[in-house]
Amino acid sequence: MHFVEDIVAKGVRERRFDIERQGRVVPGLLWTPPDAEGSRPLVLIGHGASGSKREDYVVALGRRLVRHLGYAAVAIDGPVHGDRRTKTGSAPDAPFFDFGQMWSSDMTMTDDHIGDWRATIDALQAESDIGVGAVGYWGLSMGTILGLPTVAAESRISVAVLGLMGLTGPTKARIATDAATISCPVLFLMQWDDELFPRDKVFDLFGALGSSDKRLHAHPGRHGDVPLEEFEASERFLALHLGA
Amino acid sequence: MHFVEDIVAKGVRERRFDIERQGRVVPGLLWTPPDAEGSRPLVLIGHGASGSKREDYVVALGRRLVRHLGYAAVAIDGPVHGDRRTKTGSAPDAPFFDFGQMWSSDMTMTDDHIGDWRATIDALQAESDIGVGAVGYWGLSMGTILGLPTVAAESRISVAVLGLMGLTGPTKARIATDAATISCPVLFLMQWDDELFPRDKVFDLFGALGSSDKRLHAHPGRHGDVPLEEFEASERFLALHLGA
Repeated sequence: MHFVEDIVAKGVRERRFDIERQGRVVPGLLWTPPDAEGSRPLVLIGHGASGSKREDYVVALGRRLVRHLGYAAVAIDGPVHGDRRTKTGSAPDAPFFDFGQMWSSDMTMTDDHIGDWRATIDALQAESDIGVGAVGYWGLSMGTILGLPTVAAESRISVAVLGLMGLTGPTKARIATDAATISCPVLFLMQWDDELFPRDKVFDLFGALGSSDKRLHAHPGRHGDVPLEEFEASERFLALHLGA
Repeated sequence: MHFVEDIVAKGVRERRFDIERQGRVVPGLLWTPPDAEGSRPLVLIGHGASGSKREDYVVALGRRLVRHLGYAAVAIDGPVHGDRRTKTGSAPDAPFFDFGQMWSSDMTMTDDHIGDWRATIDALQAESDIGVGAVGYWGLSMGTILGLPTVAAESRISVAVLGLMGLTGPTKARIATDAATISCPVLFLMQWDDELFPRDKVFDLFGALGSSDKRLHAHPGRHGDVPLEEFEASERFLALHLGA
C-alpha cells in the first residue's frame, strides 16, 4: 500500500492510497482521526454505480464516522469506476441498469472486488492507528451488488448496512446464495418508489438474508433519495455493533 | 375528569383517572414527571386487542417518555377492554382476528373512540402540569385500527407511530380514506412474519398514508415480537417532532 496524499480538514485526516494487487491498482481513500494511535473499528464504504470513492455521501459518511465515533473508514473505487475508469472512454455514466449488464453471470468482477476489499482490510489493519479491530460494511445499490457477496465471504465483517437492491438481474442466483449465508446484523435500506428495483424483488432480497438480526427501513422517494435520517441510523447501527 | 389513584414510583407519577362522556366512563392512566409545572408534549398511547392501559409495553413506553423526555403520556382503555370489559364475560380474550369481527363496517366503535381520545386531550390539556403543548400518538395493531382514524380526525395530533396492521378487514374502505388524509410525520412498524396481517396488505396501508414524511421499519418475527429497538426508535421519533 502506498499513500499518495495525506491531508487534514475539519478535524479529519484523509489519505489517498493505492494497493497493487494482481497487476492492478486499487485506489482508495482512508479517513481517520488526526494523531490517532492504537486500534479502532474500521468501516468499509462501497459506492454506487457511476460513483467513486469521492462521492459526496461516501466522503460525508466516512468523515461522520471519524468525527462522531473515532472510527477509521475507507472507500475504494469499484471496477471501472473512479480512478479505475479506462482511458478509452468506457466510463459508466449510463443509468444503473445499463451498467448492470456489465456483470457477467460468472461473477468474476464481484470476486475480484471481494479480493480488493480483503487486500484493503489486510493493508489497513497493519497500520498502527487502525490495527485489528471490528470491521463493518456500508454500501447501497452497486455497493450492495458488490458488497453483499463481500460480507458473505469475509468473516472479519461483523455488521453491514445494505440496500437499494433487489433479488434480480444476471447475478440473482449467486446473490441469493450469498444472502442466505450472511449471519451478521444487517440494516437494509430501501426506497419505496425505487425506479430501478421493483419493490417485490427488494423484499425478496431482504427476506433472503440469513441474519436473524436484520431490519428493513423504507422511505418514500426514488432510488437516489435516501434521506439523512438513514445516514444517522447507519451511524447508530454501526456504533451499536462495532463498539468504541 | 376524576383522579381515582395517584402514586409515584421510580421517578414517575402515575394517575388513574375516569372521564365521563355520553353516559360512559373512559378509564385512563396518566404518566407525568413528579412535581412537574407548566406545559409539555403529550403522547397518547393506544393498546392492542385483548390488552389494556396497563399492558406492560404501554406502561413501559409511558414511563420511558416521562423519564427520558419529561413528557406527559396517557393510555385509555379501548372499547370493551380493560376496565371497560362487561361484567357478563364478553372479554375479548380471543385472538385478534376473531375480535376484529366485532367491528361493524359503520365504524361506530371507532368514532366513539375518537371521541374518547378527544375528551382525554381536552381534559389533560386543562391540567396545569400538562397544558396545551404538542400532541403525539403511538399505537400498534388495534392501537392503529382505532388510532389511525383518530390521527386523521384530530388536528392536534402532529406526529404518529402506527403499524402492525394492514389494509384489510371490514373497515378497509374507511381506513384507506382516513390514511390518505393523514399528513403528519409517521413511523410505521411491521413484523415481517406477522401471522395476523398479510405482508402485502401491510405494505398497502403504508403506501396509503398521505404523509410525505413517513418511514417503514420491519423486523423478522411474529405479530407480537416488536423488538425494544423500535420502542427506542419510537421515543427518538416522537422527541424529534414534539420537541422539548
